[in-house]
Amino acid sequence: MNLRALVQAALDEDVGRGDLTTDACISPDARGHGLVLAKQDLVVSGHSAAAEVFRATAERVGGVVAYDVLVGEGSAAPRGTHISRVEGTLKTIVIAERLALNLLMRLCGIATHTRRYVDAAAGRLQVVDTRKTTPLLRQLEKRAVVHGGAANHRFSLQDGVMVKDNHITAVGSLTEAVRRARAANHHLVRVEVEVRTLSELGEALSTAADVILLDNMDDETLAEAVRQARSTRPSVILEASGNMDPERIERIRDLGLDLVSAGGLIHQARWADLSLKLQ
Amino acid sequence: MNLRALVQAALDEDVGRGDLTTDACISPDARGHGLVLAKQDLVVSGHSAAAEVFRATAERVGGVVAYDVLVGEGSAAPRGTHISRVEGTLKTIVIAERLALNLLMRLCGIATHTRRYVDAAAGRLQVVDTRKTTPLLRQLEKRAVVHGGAANHRFSLQDGVMVKDNHITAVGSLTEAVRRARAANHHLVRVEVEVRTLSELGEALSTAADVILLDNMDDETLAEAVRQARSTRPSVILEASGNMDPERIERIRDLGLDLVSAGGLIHQARWADLSLKLQ
Amino acid sequence: MNLRALVQAALDEDVGRGDLTTDACISPDARGHGLVLAKQDLVVSGHSAAAEVFRATAERVGGVVAYDVLVGEGSAAPRGTHISRVEGTLKTIVIAERLALNLLMRLCGIATHTRRYVDAAAGRLQVVDTRKTTPLLRQLEKRAVVHGGAANHRFSLQDGVMVKDNHITAVGSLTEAVRRARAANHHLVRVEVEVRTLSELGEALSTAADVILLDNMDDETLAEAVRQARSTRPSVILEASGNMDPERIERIRDLGLDLVSAGGLIHQARWADLSLKLQ
Amino acid sequence: MNLRALVQAALDEDVGRGDLTTDACISPDARGHGLVLAKQDLVVSGHSAAAEVFRATAERVGGVVAYDVLVGEGSAAPRGTHISRVEGTLKTIVIAERLALNLLMRLCGIATHTRRYVDAAAGRLQVVDTRKTTPLLRQLEKRAVVHGGAANHRFSLQDGVMVKDNHITAVGSLTEAVRRARAANHHLVRVEVEVRTLSELGEALSTAADVILLDNMDDETLAEAVRQARSTRPSVILEASGNMDPERIERIRDLGLDLVSAGGLIHQARWADLSLKLQ
Amino acid sequence: MNLRALVQAALDEDVGRGDLTTDACISPDARGHGLVLAKQDLVVSGHSAAAEVFRATAERVGGVVAYDVLVGEGSAAPRGTHISRVEGTLKTIVIAERLALNLLMRLCGIATHTRRYVDAAAGRLQVVDTRKTTPLLRQLEKRAVVHGGAANHRFSLQDGVMVKDNHITAVGSLTEAVRRARAANHHLVRVEVEVRTLSELGEALSTAADVILLDNMDDETLAEAVRQARSTRPSVILEASGNMDPERIERIRDLGLDLVSAGGLIHQARWADLSLKLQ
Amino acid sequence: MNLRALVQAALDEDVGRGDLTTDACISPDARGHGLVLAKQDLVVSGHSAAAEVFRATAERVGGVVAYDVLVGEGSAAPRGTHISRVEGTLKTIVIAERLALNLLMRLCGIATHTRRYVDAAAGRLQVVDTRKTTPLLRQLEKRAVVHGGAANHRFSLQDGVMVKDNHITAVGSLTEAVRRARAANHHLVRVEVEVRTLSELGEALSTAADVILLDNMDDETLAEAVRQARSTRPSVILEASGNMDPERIERIRDLGLDLVSAGGLIHQARWADLSLKLQ
Repeated sequence: MNLRALVQAALDEDVGRGDLTTDACISPDARGHGLVLAKQDLVVSGHSAAAEVFRATAERVGGVVAYDVLVGEGSAAPRGTHISRVEGTLKTIVIAERLALNLLMRLCGIATHTRRYVDAAAGRLQVVDTRKTTPLLRQLEKRAVVHGGAANHRFSLQDGVMVKDNHITAVGSLTEAVRRARAANHHLVRVEVEVRTLSELGEALSTAADVILLDNMDDETLAEAVRQARSTRPSVILEASGNMDPERIERIRDLGLDLVSAGGLIHQARWADLSLKLQ
Repeated sequence: MNLRALVQAALDEDVGRGDLTTDACISPDARGHGLVLAKQDLVVSGHSAAAEVFRATAERVGGVVAYDVLVGEGSAAPRGTHISRVEGTLKTIVIAERLALNLLMRLCGIATHTRRYVDAAAGRLQVVDTRKTTPLLRQLEKRAVVHGGAANHRFSLQDGVMVKDNHITAVGSLTEAVRRARAANHHLVRVEVEVRTLSELGEALSTAADVILLDNMDDETLAEAVRQARSTRPSVILEASGNMDPERIERIRDLGLDLVSAGGLIHQARWADLSLKLQ
Repeated sequence: MNLRALVQAALDEDVGRGDLTTDACISPDARGHGLVLAKQDLVVSGHSAAAEVFRATAERVGGVVAYDVLVGEGSAAPRGTHISRVEGTLKTIVIAERLALNLLMRLCGIATHTRRYVDAAAGRLQVVDTRKTTPLLRQLEKRAVVHGGAANHRFSLQDGVMVKDNHITAVGSLTEAVRRARAANHHLVRVEVEVRTLSELGEALSTAADVILLDNMDDETLAEAVRQARSTRPSVILEASGNMDPERIERIRDLGLDLVSAGGLIHQARWADLSLKLQ
Repeated sequence: MNLRALVQAALDEDVGRGDLTTDACISPDARGHGLVLAKQDLVVSGHSAAAEVFRATAERVGGVVAYDVLVGEGSAAPRGTHISRVEGTLKTIVIAERLALNLLMRLCGIATHTRRYVDAAAGRLQVVDTRKTTPLLRQLEKRAVVHGGAANHRFSLQDGVMVKDNHITAVGSLTEAVRRARAANHHLVRVEVEVRTLSELGEALSTAADVILLDNMDDETLAEAVRQARSTRPSVILEASGNMDPERIERIRDLGLDLVSAGGLIHQARWADLSLKLQ
Repeated sequence: MNLRALVQAALDEDVGRGDLTTDACISPDARGHGLVLAKQDLVVSGHSAAAEVFRATAERVGGVVAYDVLVGEGSAAPRGTHISRVEGTLKTIVIAERLALNLLMRLCGIATHTRRYVDAAAGRLQVVDTRKTTPLLRQLEKRAVVHGGAANHRFSLQDGVMVKDNHITAVGSLTEAVRRARAANHHLVRVEVEVRTLSELGEALSTAADVILLDNMDDETLAEAVRQARSTRPSVILEASGNMDPERIERIRDLGLDLVSAGGLIHQARWADLSLKLQ
Repeated sequence: MNLRALVQAALDEDVGRGDLTTDACISPDARGHGLVLAKQDLVVSGHSAAAEVFRATAERVGGVVAYDVLVGEGSAAPRGTHISRVEGTLKTIVIAERLALNLLMRLCGIATHTRRYVDAAAGRLQVVDTRKTTPLLRQLEKRAVVHGGAANHRFSLQDGVMVKDNHITAVGSLTEAVRRARAANHHLVRVEVEVRTLSELGEALSTAADVILLDNMDDETLAEAVRQARSTRPSVILEASGNMDPERIERIRDLGLDLVSAGGLIHQARWADLSLKLQ
């Protein structure tokens, strides 16, 4: 579901056949402008979505709206900053307002929350997201993660191979599971395998896996795992996951890992506080 | 977008043409079962969505899954409880897992968060949600609010008339805005009007508005507003909004209001912690 | 199904892959203009639909058409009047003609037929439509009713609460049915209940129903019902229905009713006679 | 738009997210049955559409309904006859009722109205419909025409070649227009050409046209036209149109025409009177 | 599926959420131009499809492209000729290239292959295609056949009546099958019947069939069939099919047939060799 | 576009509103069975598509069909073999026949053609396809390649990173283009870079590219390229492309390459000869 389709479906949801109040009260010709105000310190994300909401609403109700960015995506906006400005037919602005804000508040919330993880990593390792995202909003949320300064893991189950415990159990052995995953996929994808113990790590290092996910290890085990992996296969890519919050990232950022993945970038973020004030 | 279409689009997003790993590792015939575990105290919501995810995934990949509810929607599940059980083709379960959990975690999170507001209201007034919902998930999120014990406000702009400051400004007077809204709509909808001061309230009470929203008033003004309204039009419906959290609801629950509306039921909720353990 | 989608589907139906005759005979570059002629006295409706037909056909076949309104929607056009004018690529006009006329004839037919009911009401009560409309054309037909001078009842089952005999039978009592309908719905919708006897009316008046539908009563009963209702609850909204044609409306218009609803506005209307003459 | 898609769109229109009243009042488990009653003499059409409405509604709201035909399509049903019976979950029946009846009333209305034309023709010539049909209902309406005893003309602009006055004007000559239409189309379609005078008829008879439409001629001219055509090209197919009602058909049925086409079969039909009585 | 929908679906297939490489390497602002080069002698077809690919890709990725035709559809282009030129945003051109070429190569391949059959017919009979076309590409492929100089048979099963052996077997007799096919269809379609022997031909000639398909006869039988048919019903349309390649067409072109149909026009064509060179 | 949607669209194309002939001639109740016959030696592919065609047609026309595989996908079927059997309602089989065969003929044609390349490779290197596929049929055609014994390259532009000459030109250097492609993409995809000379190869070997495509080199250059690559980076994956037909593959199969890619597997394949004989 691309942005255009998503916004159409969201307008169907929030507007339906029409806004009973605005249709009764606001003339199609009246014009106005407004400013989107950050009511808290935040990192900006969601302008492309908000702009599409105003564009699509204008098309629907027969108006026009220009959406001008004042603070770009990925930039910090202190409380009290205006991050964008809309100008056009008042009716369009009033009808589009709620959906545009719902998206901006969610996405700024994620970018703002992600920034804390990234600051904790201090550039020593890369912070990446997971597939724990709001259904249908994944593209927008993953872009918000990038605006927050982190990077993206695979987008979906079709975009990368990751052998997890369920696959290993089903196949009967980690080695065989990796072998099958490698054989079944084309040569432009890598294979990642998840391990939870040093013993599993040992087995993983002798397979063709390109990436190893060290899942749910405590700090000491994690440190030992990195040492063993680096001594056996220096170029293997090492990712860690499991309860990764800024505090823990700060503790483990110098162990020699390549990446940490954290679902919390997205699912522990709350909506940022924003409003649209008509002038 | 009904539940069936939503789940199809979400599977397109998360699975796409197929799960590169599971297709390689798990036989279409292998079967298994698993339990959805509450890893925190929570109020349950989302079973219908999760069941549809497993059903639709099974249809897509050619498997079968039964989804059995163990703790019903609206019930509390203490940490450690199994809230549902899935049984069927292993491949289906593994592919559907992430989307099912993403929905359950979001919806249980909302139901759990809402319950705190409802407890604070102690039955003295009704707690209702707003249109601050995640785009495309509104039906599910509003149902989660009900599972949490609160009620729903209008679903969308087409489901109720609410005259807000922007409408009043556009029309030039509160009285005239209410008149137009009433005249333009059929006789089975009520008209609500938003006021922010006692003076606006006075004007609103002399219109045909059925419901008055007391927005962003401090506790004292709110008390006075209720008194004035009740003395003038005893049967008018009174709703309050603005920074409504459980603490404030507890303070104002005995003022004589009919309802408080709070966007935070939904947008301040974090995902509840749940996992699916294959047995 | 919004107007754009409706017209696309209707062009799929009437044009399909292409007009075998016009594609063979008329050059894509040839231009022309034509006038839509009222061949009977009528009230105009359907311009927005007709304009969309020409626009969408032009887009499909690669032409251009301007649709200019000569007599506005809601106005009367005596036989012999031109109500609109089209100008553009001849091929587009010829291909679009049938569908545009099919819509205009149906919608002018309804507006014209409705006007007779409205005239009969002479402003003493409001005439409203029902849900007896042509499937998929409801928005257009309900707008034609407005062009004819009447008003609209609820659009669909989701836009208003109306407790009818089947609901009362299923629940076991009118009072309890109204109670459930009120409890289950948000505070911006009203509840209407249908009664057929004075005894049912008595029960209805003691519920929280905002509107009472007096269905299928003869003129005397209707008069008595209004008297009883007004004496008990002066502000209750009273609607009558059942065989409402202009003659009956004239008879009962001074009884004190608020509204009469009549399916016949739409389903007893015949197509008005219109043609498109190329000049 | 096939029947399944049409009914889905019509349920979106009439039911939307749900029936506010029925959802509140009728338990999903309650069952019932009802009879569809002819409240006037009529010819039956629309069972397949009505059955699909009940089926699709049941699927939507999670119920079951059986639709049993009591009087088949194409048969006459005197006033007071039950033409079908529904049995299943009460909620489904109540929600589906209006749409099912809207379709049955429209389609029985057409079949009933058509039967009068067919009776007038007394088997001496074939009565056929035109493209003057309700947008999106063409397949159902044309089937109703068949149930009424008449036959169908081409379904759409892509299903047959008919050279009309606009085509002739655009090309500059009837002969050349027919030549182009013939040349541009495959060998399994015939070419029909419309003529309004005996002189045009003369020209048409010397082209490769397979069918000639005698449009808007008075009875005498029509008689003369048939004589001239039959003497020149005995096997040419002759169709007449223009103000064809039962009275006129009776007058001209013995002139030697093959067919008369009449838009009025459909657009002059009113809804038949039917109701669904729950038992 | 019209061209616009086809290209959207094909871009979903080939581009999906985005081009991982181009998004990383090419700036949205960079511009370029390129030429489509015929790397073999060919007949041109597919410009409208290629133009739509560039237009739709530009819309998707936010760029602009002009597509200019240098050698028109239906014209021969010797090896080394540039048949079209694209100019616009480089990113759009690079992303659209593969799909545009896939369509052009397929369609030029068909037009080029068809031309050989048409040359063999030397204007003595018409060469037509069949329903053996690539699913979803039928309109484009049938247009390529026209660009190659041949004509089209019926487009689909709904566009013409052809009674084949399976129908005859099901009905029990050729005569009765033709009678039923004639009776069930409107008067603007012809009826074609397939025969395989002279005896079947004899029967077919005494029915109302307008067209007779002489299927899979050897050259001598074919000659005799034409003689018999022409002597009985001079104006019957005669089509031959079965292993029709240019060599055979040359042999039978003077027998007196009206048409030969050949699936091989399309399914024996290979892709023509074309490339897009950025300058 | 998944298989189900593809078949629906293809039935819309080939059947539309209905089969004029079969609807007239074959009773909905008549049953029959038939065998799909290989009229040439071939490798089987397309059963899943054919089965879906029969299933979907049965659903559309209200029949039933069972499709039984006699020779599995990937197996060789000598001329005269029956590869599958259908049994069910005759009407369904007759209407579905053409589309089912169109898919089987195309897909068996590709599998059969691919097998020649694979035989030439003799297991010394892997043969893979390209993105030169028929629009909308890519999944089916790529599966046919697998049935022919070859493997698949990336499915689409979103499934793998391949830096080609246009990207390098746009960026200004191969090294920088690879760097950007690597930086912009997640850690589960590999980066491939295309080189045309030994000098480019030298540059590519010093980047982070995981795979190098040796494009359009003659046999000697290719041999030298493999030597240089293997001596510098033994584990780099080497792919060759450009005019790869079975003869050339046989010549170069022992050079030490990992893969050859050949668009001709698909675009040089002709339809295999198959028929469906009703018994």
